[in-house]
Amino acid sequence: MASTSSQHNTYGPGHAIPQVQHHEWRTAENSAAHLIPHLKSTVTQNPHLKMLDVGAGSGTITASLAQYMPSGQIVATDISDDILDRAKFHADQRGIKNITYQRASVYELPFSDASFDITHAHQVLTHLDAPVDAIREMLRVTKPGGIVSLREADMRMWCIWPEIPALKKFHELMAQSQVANGGNNMAGRELLSWALKAGARRDDVEIGFGTWCYGTERDRGPWSASMMERLRNGPMRSKALELGMATEKGIEEMIEAWRTWTVTEDAVLGIMNGEAIIHKA
Amino acid sequence: MASTSSQHNTYGPGHAIPQVQHHEWRTAENSAAHLIPHLKSTVTQNPHLKMLDVGAGSGTITASLAQYMPSGQIVATDISDDILDRAKFHADQRGIKNITYQRASVYELPFSDASFDITHAHQVLTHLDAPVDAIREMLRVTKPGGIVSLREADMRMWCIWPEIPALKKFHELMAQSQVANGGNNMAGRELLSWALKAGARRDDVEIGFGTWCYGTERDRGPWSASMMERLRNGPMRSKALELGMATEKGIEEMIEAWRTWTVTEDAVLGIMNGEAIIHKA
Repeated sequence: MASTSSQHNTYGPGHAIPQVQHHEWRTAENSAAHLIPHLKSTVTQNPHLKMLDVGAGSGTITASLAQYMPSGQIVATDISDDILDRAKFHADQRGIKNITYQRASVYELPFSDASFDITHAHQVLTHLDAPVDAIREMLRVTKPGGIVSLREADMRMWCIWPEIPALKKFHELMAQSQVANGGNNMAGRELLSWALKAGARRDDVEIGFGTWCYGTERDRGPWSASMMERLRNGPMRSKALELGMATEKGIEEMIEAWRTWTVTEDAVLGIMNGEAIIHKA
Repeated sequence: MASTSSQHNTYGPGHAIPQVQHHEWRTAENSAAHLIPHLKSTVTQNPHLKMLDVGAGSGTITASLAQYMPSGQIVATDISDDILDRAKFHADQRGIKNITYQRASVYELPFSDASFDITHAHQVLTHLDAPVDAIREMLRVTKPGGIVSLREADMRMWCIWPEIPALKKFHELMAQSQVANGGNNMAGRELLSWALKAGARRDDVEIGFGTWCYGTERDRGPWSASMMERLRNGPMRSKALELGMATEKGIEEMIEAWRTWTVTEDAVLGIMNGEAIIHKA
């Protein structure tokens, strides 16, 4: 029996736009590349496919995926109505019409068994206290022969240059607060393990890793802006102070370090994500 | 003035075949994917292109790249004649005829300025004490309008599951001994910085990250076999004991941990690599 959403932790980062605006840098190409070949082959077999995008957030990946399946339909869910409004605005601006929006918890998806050809989640499980239940529920609503597609950061795997000490501290704070919020900072490497626990057979799971790279000022800017905003006004700040993970002074140093890093010519941040395709038997 | 090879450190892992056999798992597709689009476009413009593969080792990537350029020519270099003999054997077995082999140091490449359309190195700079000199020398032998392609592990970025304590210790030992050998355990994130120091302009460098994933028993097996062999008979063992980084008992535990990991159904190792394409001005 799947646990209900009310028993679970809440979304750690919160949904305040300035703190999650870096999510809007994300596209199918830079954040769901592992899914694209499977999506293309599904579209070839069935142009009218149905996709569920769980925890779609501000929906830039959803809108990007929608363009690969012009005759198909995507349902985008999230636990926040506000963020779904923003997702709808983004798609409307681009004239994308094949997405509908619905508030829902991943633990209790309001859909019948075997409703979707593809069920997709990106950076969702890492925030959950019961990721295996979530995968089980995603498998339930997926058609036999369909796929569940997952991509989750391994938050320990941040590759920062230059190694400014305050950025190393920020990374530790990020990884610790993820766990303090009830999430997991090793989701990327655990995807296979979780998929097996959710009932998938080993031969039905394809596993791999993909990366994000912030190595130009244009890419570093939006990233840093969101991280600085989290440090100024986000739950990350209050949690860090409450749990003694950082001081006011330490937080100011982190903000200054992101500012410096953004304009440093050879600065790079690489983040490693686990990627899984589960073939529903 | 580039430093000469005799002033430099030697290749840490050594060239004993059982200890480097996992290198032979590598192909253009799993280890030089960032180069393939550039290679294809160069081949379209000039089918008779010339490529230099620096530090080609046992040559499986070289042979794999050669198949994308059937009318082109590759020169494969390494500091070890024995490993080049093995590379030649590998290519001969596959009927690949457009590769020649030449012993050479990356610091003193025996070629005129502007000899090659593409100069490629994979897991070379991470082992060097003067990586910037090496890139400068690679740029020298590359034609204006050509490219230098680099891919180097960021050895700190190992994503291991399950987190068997002896494997975490192995990883620390690997990262430490890399530095003890005169190499660098953050090469992946430093590629951009090194390219700029070697004289490239920021706009001429494309930077990104790519991964290896060992998540099936077929992939884990060759990896573990080489790591166990390094622990049994390699310079890694002698260095670890000499510098007090591990005990005989600790080393035995690491060997046993790799054995267990190999046959664990949900076991995964992900490794993050920096990737750079430098456009020669």
